[in-house]
Formats: sequence, C-alpha cells, structure tokens
Amino acid sequence: TPKPIQTPAEITDSEYHALADEYMDRLLHHLEDLAERRSEMDVEYSAGVMTVDFGQDTGTYVINKQPPNKQIWLSSPMSGPKRYDYVVLGEGQHEKQDTAAGDWVYLRDGTTLSELFKKEIGVDISMSIGQYGEQPH
Amino acid sequence: TPKPIQTPAEITDSEYHALADEYMDRLLHHLEDLAERRSEMDVEYSAGVMTVDFGQDTGTYVINKQPPNKQIWLSSPMSGPKRYDYVVLGEGQHEKQDTAAGDWVYLRDGTTLSELFKKEIGVDISMSIGQYGEQPH
Repeated sequence: TPKPIQTPAEITDSEYHALADEYMDRLLHHLEDLAERRSEMDVEYSAGVMTVDFGQDTGTYVINKQPPNKQIWLSSPMSGPKRYDYVVLGEGQHEKQDTAAGDWVYLRDGTTLSELFKKEIGVDISMSIGQYGEQPH
Repeated sequence: TPKPIQTPAEITDSEYHALADEYMDRLLHHLEDLAERRSEMDVEYSAGVMTVDFGQDTGTYVINKQPPNKQIWLSSPMSGPKRYDYVVLGEGQHEKQDTAAGDWVYLRDGTTLSELFKKEIGVDISMSIGQYGEQPH
C-alpha cells in the first residue's frame, strides 16, 4: 500500500534546532556504542556535522544539519544523498513511540532516516542502547 | 558547444589518496584564507571530511573523500549533492595549468569541483592564495 502524502511540519528555527539536535545526539550515542564493538569504524560529531567512517572498503557517511532548509542531509556511501524533513506523525503511528511525535522523513518515498540506518548499518535509533546487539552479561 | 565525453582516470588507491589529499589541502588553504576575512564562516577538516559552515542563512557545505569509489563527494546548500571523479585532462587543457594533469569532474555535465567553488563561494582554487580578494598592502 502506498504511504500517505507527507508534508514538512511547520516549525520555528529554534524548534528545528531542538528537534535536530535531539536526533543527532541520539544517533551519535547509538553509533558510538556500535563503534566500540567494531574495529574499523570511526564516529565524529562537530558543528552540526556527523562523520561515520567505515574505512577503505565501505566509505564514509555524512549526516549534517542544514538549518536554512530545516532539514537533515545524509550522504551514504551505499545509497547516495538524501534530504530529510521533520514530519509530524499521525495518531496511530504516534502511539507506537511515546518519546517522539514526529520523525525525519525523505519525502520522495516516505522512508525515515532511522529506517535507513537500521537497513544499512544495523543500528536501531528507536531502541535504547543495550536493547540489541550486546552480549549478555 | 558540448563538452567531450569524459571518463574517470584509472588510478590506484594510493594515487587516489595522493590526488584527493592534495586537492582537499589546497581547498582547505583557500577556504581558511577566506574565513579569515569573513566573520560568519567556519571551516573544519578532519578524517577526510571538510565542513564549511556559512551560518544560519546560507547553510553548510560538506566535501568528503569517498575512497571506495575513488571520488570526492560534495553537498552544497545552494545546489545540492554531486560526486566528482578524477579525470585526466587533454593536452590543450593540460598546458593551461602546469601543476595538475587532471581535475575533479562531475561527469553528468563536465563541470569541475573548482568551478563550483568559484561560482558559489567565489574561491578560485587554481590561483595562489593572495592573488585575489586581498586588500593591497
């Protein structure tokens, strides 16, 4: 079934920064957690630009805030570039995840930035650190 | 007149890194020179990823090495994303610039990465620092 048409939420500059910073921080937290368990993986975050280097064979992801557009831009060595807008999710979807009323969505196909990371890197931003991938203590 | 069809040069991994590093260093040098004269402009370069932040109104450029493809990738807040391959220039063009036998070219339209920076940022990578834009001493 086709996804419903989505439009960017009307948010102020400060709302954009709060939402994007929250997302980037959560992403960083997850990627740093993964980097601790992978040898050839390096994560850096500075001035709104996150770099995730998987080395010579895979390449480099860049995820950056783009404030004039109120977007998050992604550059993936696997799937190329995409731009994500903040979209407020409908009631049904909202109930799934009580920590977020919206998500960063690639409007051309309705997929989220979190879905891409899950698919390409195996990192699930919607979960708490430690819920996946860790060896039992 | 349409530009001739261009193909990426056949270069080894180490040639790629030498050529890309030389270009990125030259670009960094020019952008840092510009940043000294512009208040709201910040340049960072780390782990093969360069970030050029022009602030809230203009946005952020990201230029990064993508070793698996032997490309340089660009994300411009003005014109979006592009991927550049290293192309060896013909004899005629070669003579123009004795420091380089090739250039980083966007194969879809034959334009170079240097042309984009000249157009969008006003920085001419082919010139020496100090040949342009500086006040006379």
